[in-house]
Amino acid sequence: MATIGVDLGGTNITAARVHHGSAEHHAKVATPLTGADELISTITGLITGIAEDHDLDITHVGIGAPGIVDPALGTLRSAPNLHLGDTPVELTTRIRAGLADAGHDHVDVRADNDVNVALRGEWTHGAGKGHDNLLAVWWGTGIGGGLVLDGALRSGSIGSAGEIGHTMYRADGRRCGCGGHGHVEAYAGRAAMETEARRRAAAGEATELIAAAGDGRMKSSVWAEALAAGDVTAAALLDQAVDALGVAIASAVTLIDVDLVIVGGGLGSRLGEAWIERIHRATIGYLFGHAGIDVIASALGDDAGVIGAAALFES
Amino acid sequence: MATIGVDLGGTNITAARVHHGSAEHHAKVATPLTGADELISTITGLITGIAEDHDLDITHVGIGAPGIVDPALGTLRSAPNLHLGDTPVELTTRIRAGLADAGHDHVDVRADNDVNVALRGEWTHGAGKGHDNLLAVWWGTGIGGGLVLDGALRSGSIGSAGEIGHTMYRADGRRCGCGGHGHVEAYAGRAAMETEARRRAAAGEATELIAAAGDGRMKSSVWAEALAAGDVTAAALLDQAVDALGVAIASAVTLIDVDLVIVGGGLGSRLGEAWIERIHRATIGYLFGHAGIDVIASALGDDAGVIGAAALFES
Repeated sequence: MATIGVDLGGTNITAARVHHGSAEHHAKVATPLTGADELISTITGLITGIAEDHDLDITHVGIGAPGIVDPALGTLRSAPNLHLGDTPVELTTRIRAGLADAGHDHVDVRADNDVNVALRGEWTHGAGKGHDNLLAVWWGTGIGGGLVLDGALRSGSIGSAGEIGHTMYRADGRRCGCGGHGHVEAYAGRAAMETEARRRAAAGEATELIAAAGDGRMKSSVWAEALAAGDVTAAALLDQAVDALGVAIASAVTLIDVDLVIVGGGLGSRLGEAWIERIHRATIGYLFGHAGIDVIASALGDDAGVIGAAALFES
Repeated sequence: MATIGVDLGGTNITAARVHHGSAEHHAKVATPLTGADELISTITGLITGIAEDHDLDITHVGIGAPGIVDPALGTLRSAPNLHLGDTPVELTTRIRAGLADAGHDHVDVRADNDVNVALRGEWTHGAGKGHDNLLAVWWGTGIGGGLVLDGALRSGSIGSAGEIGHTMYRADGRRCGCGGHGHVEAYAGRAAMETEARRRAAAGEATELIAAAGDGRMKSSVWAEALAAGDVTAAALLDQAVDALGVAIASAVTLIDVDLVIVGGGLGSRLGEAWIERIHRATIGYLFGHAGIDVIASALGDDAGVIGAAALFES
C-alpha cells in the first residue's frame, strides 16, 4: 500500500510518495499546456514512474489542482493556468482509468483545490498541527488563503471561503487583477508589486529590480536579491506589502477569532523568518484588543502540496 | 409551561413571554446601576410580575447580557454599562434562586452575550431563518456583529468572534473607542459619528445636529431628523459610515463566504430600508468577483433580544 500526493501547478507537476506525513521519491515534470489528454497522461506517467522505480503498490492518489475542484465529483474547472478551456475535466475518474490501463487497478483517487490542499498539509503535518482554528496566507504571485474553524476546513456557502487576498486594504486604491480596487493582493501580490516596480522605473525611479529580473518575471529570488543589495524601491514595495498583509490578517483574526496564522507561499518562504516577523508585528499593531496572535512561517515549504494531497485520505 | 426572554441592557431591562418565536406580555423597567443584588432582584421581579399578571407557569428563562457571558457557568463579567465591578456575577444561578424564593421552583435559566442572543433571534425566528451561513451587523452606538457558519453560531478560539466593528477601514485612520486606529466603528458607530460631528461644529461647520441633540446624546432619531432637514454634515458622516460598513462587510463576505448579511441595531432600524440598500450597494462595490450578496434589514427589531434569549433553549 502506498499513497502518492500530486501537486499540479501551472509550471510544474510534482508527485511524491507520502508516508506518515513526510514526502519521499519526488518526481517532477513540466506541466503540459496542450489540453486535458496530455495532462492526464503526464500525471499518470509521473505516478507509475515512481511506482516502478521504487517498487510500490499504489493504492491512493491525492491531487491538488489550481482551479475550482468539486471534491465529491473529482472534476476540475476554471483553471486558466492549465489552458484546459471551458469544459470541466473529470480529473479523478480519468487518472483512475489511466492508472488501471497501466496495470494499477482500483486506485482510490481524490482531488481538491491547491490552496485547500496546501492548508490541509500544514494543518495535519506542518505548522498548524493540533490547531482547531487557524488562518493560512499564501504570499506569492497572488495572495491565497484558507481557514480551519472548529476543527474543519471552511469551504463556505459557495466554496470560496479564505480569499483574504481580495479583502480590502484601501477603499480608493489600486486596481486588482480580479477587476476590483484596493484589494490586499493589489499591494502585496508579487505580480502586482512587479507591475508597480516597472511603473516606477518607467517614471524614472532608480531600482535594481528591472536589471535583476532581466527578460523574465520578478521572481521571489529577484526581490530577495534586490533587498540584499539595499534597493530602495524593493524595500518600499515590500514594506507596503507587509502593511497590507498586517491589515488583512488583523481584520480576519478580529472577525473570526483564530489562534494561529501561518504564512507561506513563494515570497513567504524565500524572504524568510525576518519578514514573517514583520508581518507578525504589523498584524499586532492593527489587532483589536491587543490580545496577541501567533503569526508563523509554514513548516512544509514546497512539500505542503504533496503532503496535503495525500492527507485528503485522512479526513 | 412558559419561556421568558430577558433583554438586559445598560438603560432598560425588557422581558416578555416568547411562544413559537414571537413575544407577548412585554414588561420593561429601568436598569438599576447599584450592584448585583439590586439587578438580580429587579430581573426576578420583572419575570414574576409577568407570571402573575398572565397566570403563567414559568419553566424556562433566557437572558441576553451586555458583557462577557460564560454560557456553561451562567456567569457575567466585564459589563461596564451595568456598573457591576470586577467580580463575575453568577447570573443564572442567582436568578434561579430568586425565582425559587418567589415560589417558581426548578426554572431552567440560561444566559449568553447580548449580541449573540440577538443574532440567535434573527437566525431562528427572524431575517436569517433557514440560513446556515450568515453575518449579522448591529449598527448602533458601536458596531457589533456575529456569525453563523455551517449551521452553528461561531464563538471562536477565545470567544470573541464577530467583532466586525474593530476590523480595519483606514490603516492610518481615526482613533477608535477601543484604543486602536482606523477601525470601522471609529467611522460608522453612532458615538464616533457624534464625536466627529461635534468636532466639525466646534471648527465652524454649520450643522443641525448640535441643536437637535440639545443637552443629550445624538440618538438615532436625531440623525434621522437632521437627514430629513437636509443637513450636510449628517449626510456626509452617514455616507462615510455606509462606506466603512461596505468595506467591512465586503471583506468579511470575501473571507468567510456567507450567503446573507443582516443589518440591525439602533441606526439600522431607525434609518430604515433605504439606508440598508445603500449599505448593500456599497458592499457589492467592494466585493470580490461581484458574485453578489444579500444585505437585508433585521426582522425582529427590538424583539430580537427577548426572542433570541428564549431561543437559547432551542439549541
